[in-house]
Amino acid sequence: MKKISAALLGATGAVGQRYINMLDRHPYISLDVLMGGESAGKKYGEAVHWLFPDALPDRFAQAKVLKARPESAQGCDVVFSALPSEVAGEIELGFARAGYTLVSEASSHRMDPEVPLMIPEVNPDHLKLLETQKKKKGWKGAIATTPNCTVTGLAIVLKPLLDSFAAEKAIVTTMQALSGAGYPGVPSLAITENVLPYIKNEEEKVAREAKKILGTLKAGVVHENPIPMGLSCNRVQVIDGHTETLYAEFPGRVDPQEVARVLAGFRGKPQRLRLNTAPERPIIVRTENDRPQPRLDRMAGSVPGMSVTVGRLRNGIDDRSLQLTLLSHNTIRGAAGTAILTAELMEKEGFIG
Amino acid sequence: MKKISAALLGATGAVGQRYINMLDRHPYISLDVLMGGESAGKKYGEAVHWLFPDALPDRFAQAKVLKARPESAQGCDVVFSALPSEVAGEIELGFARAGYTLVSEASSHRMDPEVPLMIPEVNPDHLKLLETQKKKKGWKGAIATTPNCTVTGLAIVLKPLLDSFAAEKAIVTTMQALSGAGYPGVPSLAITENVLPYIKNEEEKVAREAKKILGTLKAGVVHENPIPMGLSCNRVQVIDGHTETLYAEFPGRVDPQEVARVLAGFRGKPQRLRLNTAPERPIIVRTENDRPQPRLDRMAGSVPGMSVTVGRLRNGIDDRSLQLTLLSHNTIRGAAGTAILTAELMEKEGFIG
Amino acid sequence: MKKISAALLGATGAVGQRYINMLDRHPYISLDVLMGGESAGKKYGEAVHWLFPDALPDRFAQAKVLKARPESAQGCDVVFSALPSEVAGEIELGFARAGYTLVSEASSHRMDPEVPLMIPEVNPDHLKLLETQKKKKGWKGAIATTPNCTVTGLAIVLKPLLDSFAAEKAIVTTMQALSGAGYPGVPSLAITENVLPYIKNEEEKVAREAKKILGTLKAGVVHENPIPMGLSCNRVQVIDGHTETLYAEFPGRVDPQEVARVLAGFRGKPQRLRLNTAPERPIIVRTENDRPQPRLDRMAGSVPGMSVTVGRLRNGIDDRSLQLTLLSHNTIRGAAGTAILTAELMEKEGFIG
Amino acid sequence: MKKISAALLGATGAVGQRYINMLDRHPYISLDVLMGGESAGKKYGEAVHWLFPDALPDRFAQAKVLKARPESAQGCDVVFSALPSEVAGEIELGFARAGYTLVSEASSHRMDPEVPLMIPEVNPDHLKLLETQKKKKGWKGAIATTPNCTVTGLAIVLKPLLDSFAAEKAIVTTMQALSGAGYPGVPSLAITENVLPYIKNEEEKVAREAKKILGTLKAGVVHENPIPMGLSCNRVQVIDGHTETLYAEFPGRVDPQEVARVLAGFRGKPQRLRLNTAPERPIIVRTENDRPQPRLDRMAGSVPGMSVTVGRLRNGIDDRSLQLTLLSHNTIRGAAGTAILTAELMEKEGFIG
Repeated sequence: MKKISAALLGATGAVGQRYINMLDRHPYISLDVLMGGESAGKKYGEAVHWLFPDALPDRFAQAKVLKARPESAQGCDVVFSALPSEVAGEIELGFARAGYTLVSEASSHRMDPEVPLMIPEVNPDHLKLLETQKKKKGWKGAIATTPNCTVTGLAIVLKPLLDSFAAEKAIVTTMQALSGAGYPGVPSLAITENVLPYIKNEEEKVAREAKKILGTLKAGVVHENPIPMGLSCNRVQVIDGHTETLYAEFPGRVDPQEVARVLAGFRGKPQRLRLNTAPERPIIVRTENDRPQPRLDRMAGSVPGMSVTVGRLRNGIDDRSLQLTLLSHNTIRGAAGTAILTAELMEKEGFIG
Repeated sequence: MKKISAALLGATGAVGQRYINMLDRHPYISLDVLMGGESAGKKYGEAVHWLFPDALPDRFAQAKVLKARPESAQGCDVVFSALPSEVAGEIELGFARAGYTLVSEASSHRMDPEVPLMIPEVNPDHLKLLETQKKKKGWKGAIATTPNCTVTGLAIVLKPLLDSFAAEKAIVTTMQALSGAGYPGVPSLAITENVLPYIKNEEEKVAREAKKILGTLKAGVVHENPIPMGLSCNRVQVIDGHTETLYAEFPGRVDPQEVARVLAGFRGKPQRLRLNTAPERPIIVRTENDRPQPRLDRMAGSVPGMSVTVGRLRNGIDDRSLQLTLLSHNTIRGAAGTAILTAELMEKEGFIG
Repeated sequence: MKKISAALLGATGAVGQRYINMLDRHPYISLDVLMGGESAGKKYGEAVHWLFPDALPDRFAQAKVLKARPESAQGCDVVFSALPSEVAGEIELGFARAGYTLVSEASSHRMDPEVPLMIPEVNPDHLKLLETQKKKKGWKGAIATTPNCTVTGLAIVLKPLLDSFAAEKAIVTTMQALSGAGYPGVPSLAITENVLPYIKNEEEKVAREAKKILGTLKAGVVHENPIPMGLSCNRVQVIDGHTETLYAEFPGRVDPQEVARVLAGFRGKPQRLRLNTAPERPIIVRTENDRPQPRLDRMAGSVPGMSVTVGRLRNGIDDRSLQLTLLSHNTIRGAAGTAILTAELMEKEGFIG
Repeated sequence: MKKISAALLGATGAVGQRYINMLDRHPYISLDVLMGGESAGKKYGEAVHWLFPDALPDRFAQAKVLKARPESAQGCDVVFSALPSEVAGEIELGFARAGYTLVSEASSHRMDPEVPLMIPEVNPDHLKLLETQKKKKGWKGAIATTPNCTVTGLAIVLKPLLDSFAAEKAIVTTMQALSGAGYPGVPSLAITENVLPYIKNEEEKVAREAKKILGTLKAGVVHENPIPMGLSCNRVQVIDGHTETLYAEFPGRVDPQEVARVLAGFRGKPQRLRLNTAPERPIIVRTENDRPQPRLDRMAGSVPGMSVTVGRLRNGIDDRSLQLTLLSHNTIRGAAGTAILTAELMEKEGFIG
């Protein structure tokens, strides 16, 4: 298979590190360029506050961090962006204008009507927006984005609930991991023996992005899914893995066992195409009462961290409503993993390489 | 004021300790008898695994733990029960038959149609059930109960939402403290860097008890409140203080600011009677985005731990729905405190002493 | 009693907040001026990220934060400094030159030979250095300092071990609380389910400061105590309260029970003078195997947080060595409390007011 | 290579689970028999409260737990014992008498003069005690033991410090993980936001066992190493990985850099024999200030969890003393891993199979 050469923006951050972790042994995406802000000019191994137990591979430790500008990525087929959203907008634009194809985890361009917001299992057809984008934006390159870490697991579960059961309302409470706030992120004095009942802008983002991802692409326009969503986002003392309770309503009776079958059987285009980073089962359904748990289930699945685990499936206030708990790894399925999977899909469909 | 002499069943447990903590300086309830199971015969100070930073008062440390049988409580006006529910049913029955008035925190008799399930601010009139009870049960004594620790804060907030805004549906996710499971309770290996998505029987209990407490007493019968409730109960690593997100629907528009005013202004009979353990404000409304937090707000109010703190008041999926986060101290407002307040109300109304 | 008017430098930081917490109800020290850096010009209640469960008293919430310069403190009898050490040196010097008497918690001037480093129970006579200081420095005002939060509890325990048993060597391992690093301080991602085996500069500071505090003042010069000290400083996930294990060697046999008696009986000048913030017992000795524990013992004593709790007293490798565990509250005894106690002693001795 | 058939006593406990985890893919030890107490008769998958994120392999989930008696292990070449020490003594004796060769993690027989207490890198020659044992005990089988989880890492580090530098004294403070106490073990209410300064019998055990392991076998008798040891054992909120600070004294100057070289270069018989579970480097020396950390370093090394990580090497109170921090995985290197490595060595030396 042809090698794809990749560059990474925001390489030293918490999400940037996850890309390195995941791409280190990728069979055909070769991470060749690391870019950073203040760290530019240093060796990556010296610039990074490496967060993982797995040792930083030596070839990355020795790599020089380059400035975050198009010239640094010369020859690369794809540029992953793990930039903080405050700075991502302009920098990514520069790369797109210079002819690069970006897959960005930043929020800056996610809601741009011509930019696809991708979860390959959910809306693979939205990649076609890249053609509209090309026409309308006049960029030589292109930008695809992946969603907020909290919406990813939720949208994957809502997809079959919408398609097979016509879900009409979703009330969600999240218990989110610390790594979602980056490093240094949440002060230990704030979260120790505590729950934080608020995450800035999170509730709006999750509802807005879910509706776009679950929307329908017609004639170059994404028509948002109209499902009403109510969110309460909380931070708890967990390192990785967002836990979410979902209450959903339906137009008719729903049988939790049938829902379990449908969720467990859900497969998307990445599974059909056997993409490298696609887990065999996007959704793992557990039947024990006390699952999912972040520490036990966040790395579940054939591609660790890429499956969403669902448990506690039961009716809600009546037999036309449903309750469940879902868990997904926020920096793998919720960030680097979905971006890499998107790049793999883009390569298959001819948008990269 | 006349002194009330009290006895305590289940004195060495986590909730039992909270009674000692709260009654130590009570102006007119004197805790004179401590009863226990395996600890009977020992000095309390030797039998207990004391959980609080405040030192165990010496007079309790030196007190002998008596057997859990009616003779031990001779001369007492009221018997508080902090027994585990597995054993509470029979033992409490023995005391009631022997002529004692009990206020019980155990779940055994809570759903008995002739036993009042009390939150003095919410359903003070349900005490009248004790008269029906007397007639029907043929006990010389009586049993009043107080609810599960998770339902207490919730019912206090639902009360004005029902009375003033006719709330029609409640979807609740809880993040519950470790002390709710007693001692030793949750193993540290289970909860460290984790969330447990299930608490046995909790969801059923909360819905059932809330409907009884919020129900209407007519002709000696409690007619349950019909509000549909969907619950998801989780355990998080917090010592004290249950956090709950509430999504509620209403028949018409609700304005969060008006709701805030109504909640903050809510007062009950204990406040009107100026009962000793009644907080000035049963509900404290915070306007900061990031409150309530268990570590900062669990001891809020004029009687520490007896007020429920509400924050993040906002509309839900539309202007006929509402979302908020509430916090209440699970072993004070959710257990010993509400039981003591109930005893104070019973004394005022002539059911004790 | 005459009122003392106090000003506070670094009012919004974690230690600054502890001063407000402790001085709020002080009988004769009135905290009249709050000074800050970036927060200058704002209301204190808006500038501060208040860390305590106790509500911020309204008079402080409404107070305007003034610039950290001598004019702001006009009329004040004493200036407490809770400045970060990076900026404290110059600012404090400005105040001293302008005629103010400072009690500083910052490390900048602690090791200055003419500046006393005070723990009132341990070295009250070192206050006389202020006279030498006056002569040599030519300042109109004066600077007294209090030590690092880790050394305070240790020095209080070493004092009687040196005086009564001639301790010859001290090997110490600390397990330090998060609040010792200020706010935001330690990232939650760094400390969750972890131990950090290093605290920058801490080991050097503790040894150096302990030797000065335990030293002898002769002819205007502090002669350091020569006891060899080996330190290993660690951070653990505790909010407040530094736990320290101490192994000490002695020239002859030491009997743990006798040591326990001596430690428990230790009293200093603040106790004899009955200073307001002086705990009745500077050292509380526990005999249970499993004490001291930070969560249970940090607020021990007649002035909460001002007593050091010692436990696990036993011989070490032989009967001429000793092992024990000590605990002290790092922001009360280890910071604001010792500074306030120092100011109280200074007032008694005529250095303030 | 010839297959070794193994049985496991105490299969459902926390350490038992680690054996299953480690032996699942062992190239020549086949775990064929699982034995338990109350769980006997059930399927293992139903009897166990599985603690690991890695799924329980199906062949073990389906295996029936057998009664803990010799007949259950028929045909097995070795019996691993992960029994709790309260019951291990008698049961293990029964197996030894019945002709089985045991490798036991329980403390019951560790200090028996005829039973070797093994860390294969430290005292491989002690296996010869099995011959003495055979003669003196009159058992048809044999018992070898492995030490307490806290002593393992310490003894591995002390070995080269004794051999190359003649260490004369060791003062150790531990910060031990929760898994060392088994499941359910430490209650979450006890350890949350806290440190426990005491672990029952631990300090005595560590000193005693270290002296035996580091002792010299002469004429069938182990002569204990005389190094004086002072221990302070603490529990902290870490899942796996015991951190220990070590202060050691020497007869002459010690250069931390030379010590680092010697520790990093330390190899034992398992490395020379290239045993399957032997890590390439028994000791990994880190030079960063802030390592080792349990969460980052416990799985270090070529065989995850089998290497001890050492950091913060520096002189102590003078140039004849040394301080360092060490970390070892308490259920791998400190339990199952060392027992498996011992069995591998026994097989090579002809004591098994």
